[in-house]
Amino acid sequence: MTQSEIGLIGLGTMGAMLALNIAEKGFAIAVWNRTTEVTQRFVANAGDLAPRITATQSLAELVRSLKAPRAIILMVPAGQPVDDQIAALTPLLDEGDMIIDAGNANFRDTNRRAQDAAKGGPQFLGIGVSGGEEGARHGPSIMGGGRAQDWARIEPVLQAIAAKYEGTPCATLMGEAGAGHFVKTVHNGIEYADMQMIAEVYGVMRDGMSMPAAAISGLFDGWNKGPLQSYLIEISAAVTAVVDQKTNRPIVDVILDRAGQKGTGRWTAIEAQHLSAPIPVIEAAVMARNTSARLEERLKGEARFGAAPQTLPEGALMPQDLEAAMIAGKILCYAQGFALISAASDEFGWALPLPEIAKVWREGCIIRSAMLNDMAQALAEEPGRNLIFAPFFADHLEKSHKALRKLVAQAALCGLPLPALASGLAWFDMMRTGRSTANMIQAQRDFFGAHGFERIDGGADHHGPWALQGG
Amino acid sequence: MTQSEIGLIGLGTMGAMLALNIAEKGFAIAVWNRTTEVTQRFVANAGDLAPRITATQSLAELVRSLKAPRAIILMVPAGQPVDDQIAALTPLLDEGDMIIDAGNANFRDTNRRAQDAAKGGPQFLGIGVSGGEEGARHGPSIMGGGRAQDWARIEPVLQAIAAKYEGTPCATLMGEAGAGHFVKTVHNGIEYADMQMIAEVYGVMRDGMSMPAAAISGLFDGWNKGPLQSYLIEISAAVTAVVDQKTNRPIVDVILDRAGQKGTGRWTAIEAQHLSAPIPVIEAAVMARNTSARLEERLKGEARFGAAPQTLPEGALMPQDLEAAMIAGKILCYAQGFALISAASDEFGWALPLPEIAKVWREGCIIRSAMLNDMAQALAEEPGRNLIFAPFFADHLEKSHKALRKLVAQAALCGLPLPALASGLAWFDMMRTGRSTANMIQAQRDFFGAHGFERIDGGADHHGPWALQGG
Repeated sequence: MTQSEIGLIGLGTMGAMLALNIAEKGFAIAVWNRTTEVTQRFVANAGDLAPRITATQSLAELVRSLKAPRAIILMVPAGQPVDDQIAALTPLLDEGDMIIDAGNANFRDTNRRAQDAAKGGPQFLGIGVSGGEEGARHGPSIMGGGRAQDWARIEPVLQAIAAKYEGTPCATLMGEAGAGHFVKTVHNGIEYADMQMIAEVYGVMRDGMSMPAAAISGLFDGWNKGPLQSYLIEISAAVTAVVDQKTNRPIVDVILDRAGQKGTGRWTAIEAQHLSAPIPVIEAAVMARNTSARLEERLKGEARFGAAPQTLPEGALMPQDLEAAMIAGKILCYAQGFALISAASDEFGWALPLPEIAKVWREGCIIRSAMLNDMAQALAEEPGRNLIFAPFFADHLEKSHKALRKLVAQAALCGLPLPALASGLAWFDMMRTGRSTANMIQAQRDFFGAHGFERIDGGADHHGPWALQGG
Repeated sequence: MTQSEIGLIGLGTMGAMLALNIAEKGFAIAVWNRTTEVTQRFVANAGDLAPRITATQSLAELVRSLKAPRAIILMVPAGQPVDDQIAALTPLLDEGDMIIDAGNANFRDTNRRAQDAAKGGPQFLGIGVSGGEEGARHGPSIMGGGRAQDWARIEPVLQAIAAKYEGTPCATLMGEAGAGHFVKTVHNGIEYADMQMIAEVYGVMRDGMSMPAAAISGLFDGWNKGPLQSYLIEISAAVTAVVDQKTNRPIVDVILDRAGQKGTGRWTAIEAQHLSAPIPVIEAAVMARNTSARLEERLKGEARFGAAPQTLPEGALMPQDLEAAMIAGKILCYAQGFALISAASDEFGWALPLPEIAKVWREGCIIRSAMLNDMAQALAEEPGRNLIFAPFFADHLEKSHKALRKLVAQAALCGLPLPALASGLAWFDMMRTGRSTANMIQAQRDFFGAHGFERIDGGADHHGPWALQGG
């Protein structure tokens, strides 16, 4: 029996695609799945790649079929199944063997597993893999977390299978332990926000401007040739162009407006709360998905208060206003996302390479876009700086924020909900207000709770000469 | 030695005030503080109440000085200090003795401590106490969590010290274990939101309408006689009327605009994420505090993009528009807060008494307001219904949402940030949109991840006939 270079456990959609990708790049791979028929079917359908794939029927056989020191990728559901799999594998492994969790783990679980590894368990890497099914098959974006020496062992495989941006593989070690899965989580949070902002502008066109799906598709297509060029704009053009075979209507018009989610947007929002990092655009996107799920209440609301979306006044907004507003919204959203990563890097002592994160997202992943290359450059110039202050993006914002204002204002008047874009604008306006209104909050807090305040002329922990104290 | 009816540990500001309140209501109380001088000073300053207060110098003495079965209130900092105190007390207690954590605990800690109690530790109650220093001294709002029989034992004391709303004590058992601390957490989240909305409207008056603090105070004072009547509006009128003794300027004008927080707003946001419950107004309020803390970045933003707050066009908004917008914002915020509580009640099997929660908040706590009485009635009519659909509030919203729109639109155009009010409006517009834009999100998700979608003509897990699959 020839020994394979790498093992993979879990032949669900993503695992199967990743295994084919690995085999295609020339690596001999041994695979195992809990259900043996799944394994057999997988190899039977592997075509030309089958000779490089070894199907195994037990964990022990999988382990025996691998060259030492072994490297085994887990592609099983996040959470307990990962712990179960590690527990089952551990007694079969030798010192120096390594387990790589390539699933959608919560980075706190990855931190814990890395600690277990440090206490004498098998070596452990946690890597975030983005790009959906097609990305896994033909080139995902890979965000690694773990020890440099462990990453180095598996790096040739990961770089071979990763997406390439102008020849550079989108596979980078981000930092220790859960750093890779954390970066992947934020990636997904940004993905929620990008999708929500697109949906909001789509709604303005559909409901505020009465544009048919095909015309909306045409606009998305045009935007995809400018600063908004991105996979998500590209597929928005694609989906709005598709006609439903059953009804002959645009397919978006027959899809129910109740959005699903797998929870990574929520994780992003929770971690941002722990870090006191403002990410209102992502929070709004998660909120919007949750609210979309309450279809019955929304129908009740429409019946009680009248349909929300009203037609915009003729000529109130031009398509180029929408594009400019989206550019502003996107910059604001990413500025928040990178600031969150930066806060996590400080908090967890990770020294996350911000420009490398932007680079690794340029290809393979769902949020890949032209702008990420500009972000990589801006972050390389001055990594700690908020992106809104990088000259390239500050110039963009200066040109586009007025369109975002006009859009948010018109939508507010007409009842078109733009939670993500409006949150982005409010945050931008807070970030350019040297004298905010938090003085009022501090006055209230001192009044009722004696929490104290700082004065503008210096000094902390002052108290007001409140005549009337809280009743 | 006469034995006291109740014990209290921790004579910080809140603990001291609570102890005086208890003594004043006729209960003999024994107190202990880690630092004996604090205990001695406390009793020395207790005046007429001193005879009912027993100062103790050790935990053992505290325990000995209490009638059995004992009841001991903890008022120590949340987190580890509470666990430490329970651990220190437990060996000194007898079966049937009870510990009552009246601090600002995370309800998950309270759940855990209640479990420990059920496993044989001392009886345990977790109660949320709101009202700041003055509330603790003269009548707080008390939200209890624990077993009914344990609550019943201490109820006479809690009802005696609690605030009264038209004679009804604001002290209620909300449910088991962490239920009381959960309700208190949401109370605090709503408090953040109420304060932020007031600060936003204050900013519109100060920056958009160039009103001096005294004039703003006059408006708040007027609003406090209408539907917005509440403690927070009252103290907003008060603080804007106060003049700084050092500079002779309105004190709000010399208070630095960098808001502090103790984390309960964050807890609310995190729990809402876990429950998929949309609370965008509270999230925006937490975000605003976090952003206010970044003063240096805001100053940099002002230098780069120009000062955000610009004067509103003459006559664009009238003071009554601001009042109406605040009414709408407040209803939307509370609707979200109660929906969150309802979601938690379902998730944790608590059967939380929603009308009773509104009732217990009518007096004593920071968010006490006239509107809470109307909410108690609306929730009693139909507890599971979102407050925006209760006739009283739906009518209010119908009258006021246009003012909120006008305010959000004008502020967006002028660069005045209204994160909380704008989030409330966007959520309201989502909640009255029967056909939202989440169909676009579902189309994208199916396109890149084969996640499937529901069709408007029925059936789930459909897939689009996507020609081009994700690259």
